[in-house]
Amino acid sequence: MPEPGTQSGCSSMDVAGADESLHAWFLGPRAENADILERLVLESLRDHVFWRRNFHPEDGFTIHEADRRSRGYDAANARLTQELFGLLAALKRDVPFFSGRYQGHMVGEQTIAAQVGYFAAMLYNPNNVAAEVSPVTTGLELEAADQLAAMIGYDTARSWSHLCAGGTIANLEALWIARGVRYLPVALALAARDLGIALPVRTPAGGTEDMRELSLWSLLNLDGTDTLDAYQLLHESATHRDVEVALDAHSLATIGYQDYTRQLAAAFGDALPAGVILVASTAHYSWEKIARALGIGARRMVAVPVDAHCRMDPDALWGVLSRCAAEQRPVLAVVSVCGTTEEGAVDRLDLVTQVRERAAVELGVAFHLHSDACYGGYAASVTRGADGARLSAAAIRSKHALDWPSPAWVASIEALSQADSVTIDPHKLGYVPYPAGALLVRDRRARALVSLDPPYLAPSDGADRVGEAFIGRWILEGSKPGAAAAAVWLSHRVVPLDERGYGHLITRTVEGAYRLYSALREEALAPFGVVRLAPPDLNIVNWMMTHPALRTLAEVNAFNDAIHARLSPGAADPPYFITRTRLDSPAHDGVIEPLLKQLDVDASEWRNEGLVVLRAVVMDPFLGDASATPDHVAGFVAALRSAAADVLSVAGTSSTSALRVRC
Amino acid sequence: MPEPGTQSGCSSMDVAGADESLHAWFLGPRAENADILERLVLESLRDHVFWRRNFHPEDGFTIHEADRRSRGYDAANARLTQELFGLLAALKRDVPFFSGRYQGHMVGEQTIAAQVGYFAAMLYNPNNVAAEVSPVTTGLELEAADQLAAMIGYDTARSWSHLCAGGTIANLEALWIARGVRYLPVALALAARDLGIALPVRTPAGGTEDMRELSLWSLLNLDGTDTLDAYQLLHESATHRDVEVALDAHSLATIGYQDYTRQLAAAFGDALPAGVILVASTAHYSWEKIARALGIGARRMVAVPVDAHCRMDPDALWGVLSRCAAEQRPVLAVVSVCGTTEEGAVDRLDLVTQVRERAAVELGVAFHLHSDACYGGYAASVTRGADGARLSAAAIRSKHALDWPSPAWVASIEALSQADSVTIDPHKLGYVPYPAGALLVRDRRARALVSLDPPYLAPSDGADRVGEAFIGRWILEGSKPGAAAAAVWLSHRVVPLDERGYGHLITRTVEGAYRLYSALREEALAPFGVVRLAPPDLNIVNWMMTHPALRTLAEVNAFNDAIHARLSPGAADPPYFITRTRLDSPAHDGVIEPLLKQLDVDASEWRNEGLVVLRAVVMDPFLGDASATPDHVAGFVAALRSAAADVLSVAGTSSTSALRVRC
Repeated sequence: MPEPGTQSGCSSMDVAGADESLHAWFLGPRAENADILERLVLESLRDHVFWRRNFHPEDGFTIHEADRRSRGYDAANARLTQELFGLLAALKRDVPFFSGRYQGHMVGEQTIAAQVGYFAAMLYNPNNVAAEVSPVTTGLELEAADQLAAMIGYDTARSWSHLCAGGTIANLEALWIARGVRYLPVALALAARDLGIALPVRTPAGGTEDMRELSLWSLLNLDGTDTLDAYQLLHESATHRDVEVALDAHSLATIGYQDYTRQLAAAFGDALPAGVILVASTAHYSWEKIARALGIGARRMVAVPVDAHCRMDPDALWGVLSRCAAEQRPVLAVVSVCGTTEEGAVDRLDLVTQVRERAAVELGVAFHLHSDACYGGYAASVTRGADGARLSAAAIRSKHALDWPSPAWVASIEALSQADSVTIDPHKLGYVPYPAGALLVRDRRARALVSLDPPYLAPSDGADRVGEAFIGRWILEGSKPGAAAAAVWLSHRVVPLDERGYGHLITRTVEGAYRLYSALREEALAPFGVVRLAPPDLNIVNWMMTHPALRTLAEVNAFNDAIHARLSPGAADPPYFITRTRLDSPAHDGVIEPLLKQLDVDASEWRNEGLVVLRAVVMDPFLGDASATPDHVAGFVAALRSAAADVLSVAGTSSTSALRVRC
Repeated sequence: MPEPGTQSGCSSMDVAGADESLHAWFLGPRAENADILERLVLESLRDHVFWRRNFHPEDGFTIHEADRRSRGYDAANARLTQELFGLLAALKRDVPFFSGRYQGHMVGEQTIAAQVGYFAAMLYNPNNVAAEVSPVTTGLELEAADQLAAMIGYDTARSWSHLCAGGTIANLEALWIARGVRYLPVALALAARDLGIALPVRTPAGGTEDMRELSLWSLLNLDGTDTLDAYQLLHESATHRDVEVALDAHSLATIGYQDYTRQLAAAFGDALPAGVILVASTAHYSWEKIARALGIGARRMVAVPVDAHCRMDPDALWGVLSRCAAEQRPVLAVVSVCGTTEEGAVDRLDLVTQVRERAAVELGVAFHLHSDACYGGYAASVTRGADGARLSAAAIRSKHALDWPSPAWVASIEALSQADSVTIDPHKLGYVPYPAGALLVRDRRARALVSLDPPYLAPSDGADRVGEAFIGRWILEGSKPGAAAAAVWLSHRVVPLDERGYGHLITRTVEGAYRLYSALREEALAPFGVVRLAPPDLNIVNWMMTHPALRTLAEVNAFNDAIHARLSPGAADPPYFITRTRLDSPAHDGVIEPLLKQLDVDASEWRNEGLVVLRAVVMDPFLGDASATPDHVAGFVAALRSAAADVLSVAGTSSTSALRVRC
């Protein structure tokens, strides 16, 4: 694996200097660091140019200066320049993610390191499907992904991590692997029967039994690690080929769901109810997309209710698991969230893992535990010291004036190491350009369940150097940009995954979110009222605006919709950019119900109406600084008040029907 | 939709000037056009910088000059520069795709337009999940994808096209949609029963029947367009919500395979054999990955044999379809290939569509027809004149000295317009950076079967402007780079999708491939023999080297493996880069058998051994020019001969066991 720049070490960085470093990490809202970006982009470009010049110089020139003086050449260049200028002009209508005025979606600045790293590598256009076409960037990908794995506490000697196109693909892969592991015992038991081999496995009760003798329900509730141990054991008991042939005859991946379902019924008498996925009700909508695509089915996703903090309710999870156990309904996976899309909520994964342990003992139920940390994953860097050691909540809080994080928050983050898989998007809080997602799998043996070799790779068991460097055999995607890997890698080198780097950066955004949260108060917004959701777990702030003239929940919702319309890209020249979401019942009942009292309107229709909630994603690290010019927190609150006043004056405070029409 | 640069029009380009233009399209093997790339990159960067400066100038500066003079700032910059230099140094170990010496995998140069377009848009970092975060590049994506659809002959008013991460994702989406359409009649029939609504549909026999009365086999063999007509009709017969609820109760996507399989058995008495996918045996290995992930199952993929040209054998397809009909085994999809990964073969899709028509009439069998044109799709530009009109083979051939393309080839390309879906990778023959795949669906109504709305989008039927611009609701991925769309779009603007642009470029690469094919002859390679596969359908050349001392097929294979090892990145300083593949039995029997005679060795083990075949992908447009300096065709043939001689002298011609050891 290449280690460019290792000489410079990390010693030149310290925690105290992080705030100064922060000024160098980004191009800046006013492109203050344009000189640096320009210098490095030019350096990268020229470096590449001279690489080409130096490659077999005896080859001479293919395009001659005379060729560059033809009419067609000129016309092509004129066209390129003209069209590019057209594109540049059109891009002026893009959204100013770089500005403190943008607190909309989960997109902000990119680090200069990521921008330059992407550009530099893109000139080479490596394809990270295999090291043969990306000898440098495949190494960078594995290294950068392993850094994320180490950050969340995985043992990188045992885990498997890679980058991919984004969170949806990463989550799909996680569930694909989860399904492979959960159904593996069935294939193992039937293969062991076919091969006439005894296959002992540890059972949740603590004993050891021959898998061939277990019931379908027991097989579907074995521990994942024990299952992979048995997989390894079977491979040691016969030839690789014999084992694979026997497994293929009984594997969902090979024979497909339709025959599999019939085979379960034939082999075990009863195929049991269809397997389900338990998903925090705040989970991203793409989980349903994934359940549909994989053939699991949208209705086989069971939403686990959340509490007032928008975190998965561990008691509710226990309740759902108990019902599944009573119905002998297999649970393929539980999906917890670290940084929900709408609220940035961080599930109490520590409590979820306790539920998992209790379910194994008391209910005999086991499942794949996945954390969708696509948004929040990078926040684990907050809990890492410069030496990589884990920091306590007290230690973190000692370094800033913020009432965050709580020991419970740190425990939730520490519990990521207990999840069977975790997805993290570098293109969100990693501040790198799209596309960059990551999938981290705790037990690397699981990847064999989704692997496939193309004809142009020599057969191997994957343990050799060539197999390892051929990432495409273990993942869903084929061709993918090595440039994305270079961007993530370089950004991690410059902004380390600890309190000096990303930890500091993200803490600053949380400071900004808390400043905003505090500023959203009646005094600043009068005559309007404000109802805030729980204080942020990360850097997303949610609230509703109210006014005494509004009598029903429908009117409050319409009011907030109209405010949002004035503070989003649809408006003409909006002073600030936020987003809005809708909290639906029953998924968000735990969040909604405490808020209804504060709203003080006729909320009888809340189960149909839901709540329209304004949402600010604070990815700008400078928002937390009260001395910054301008103070975008104060500016935003003034703009919010003004937008609210505009809505009501347009509508007339006495005419709520007019309000609804104008919204 | 933005139309920057429209003023410049296409009139400045003509066919005659294409060869001159070609010199301007790429940076060049010697970076001959470095000045142009540098100017445009700088222009894009500075343009972006001043966009930031001009955005609310009253905001002042967030990062002050004093901030840029702190110790921490300096340290961060030192670190960035040092690490970048490390990366740039490491990248020198990358593969020289830009050079005429590289004829390895499907990766070559990128157009300057694509490089600059990507970089320019990346600075803005738009996210093409929705226009709200990519108001400019979402439009560019839809426009660029529609250009591809128009190129293959789709009616863009009725089709649906978008870009994605790459071919595997695009193909997965195609099969996901195909499954949705194929199983839709079952849900329609059962929903119509529930709703008490008669639902007439045209049957393959030509009559009209109420879907509620049809057998499962008949339902699964309705024409796709008729099915979508019925889908529309049902929606017109009841409220949107009632229809969706009724369909959801019987849809695979909602209830999942396990319950679906049981429901089919309950509703129709017999669930029929599991649905299969018929795939050209030359299809990319990712199809198996996809069949596994979607839950269809690897064994439910039936390989259709290919002929000596590596094209799907239409008679063999008919045979497989006949067997499926006899077994009442539903055929979900037939996957034909336009530009196979290993050989660049272009299936006779025109004949495949004839088989489809005959199967509907004679067998009562219908299926989704997909063309995997990930590699070959851009070659459709060869058949387009400057005015967009289709060119005949004779018209194309009149403009160059090449014995290509045949009328049959043009007919195959024209037949793309008859496929239900087509996938094309701009990051292959579109010469744009990774990641860029595309999915084109002939009947846009089919996308509704995979669509899903997130909570932050207001409910809509998708027909409105907001719904259209929210690409994420119709596709698998969520966040994705708008920069990729800008790259494809700008490249299409500068290098049009007709004989003046991509058509010319690709024709030049085919010329190169034919020059190479012709140069691979005994006279040039003596004392070595050469056995070539059929002449290229596109720009990929396959052959085997032989020598009188080699007595068995195993020895010939080892010989070719060893030659490949000397001409690939694994070697120390290889003079040229090629790849190799292995033609396996029975998938490639149609290709292998005619070659065995020419090999003149003991080939009794060919069904176990397969054939190791050397492979050159000619993406370099300058290889076809005999007057180019250097002549890389002649250079390569000399290097090939030298590598072959090196292998045999290492091994000793009398000791074939030594040969195998040294390979």
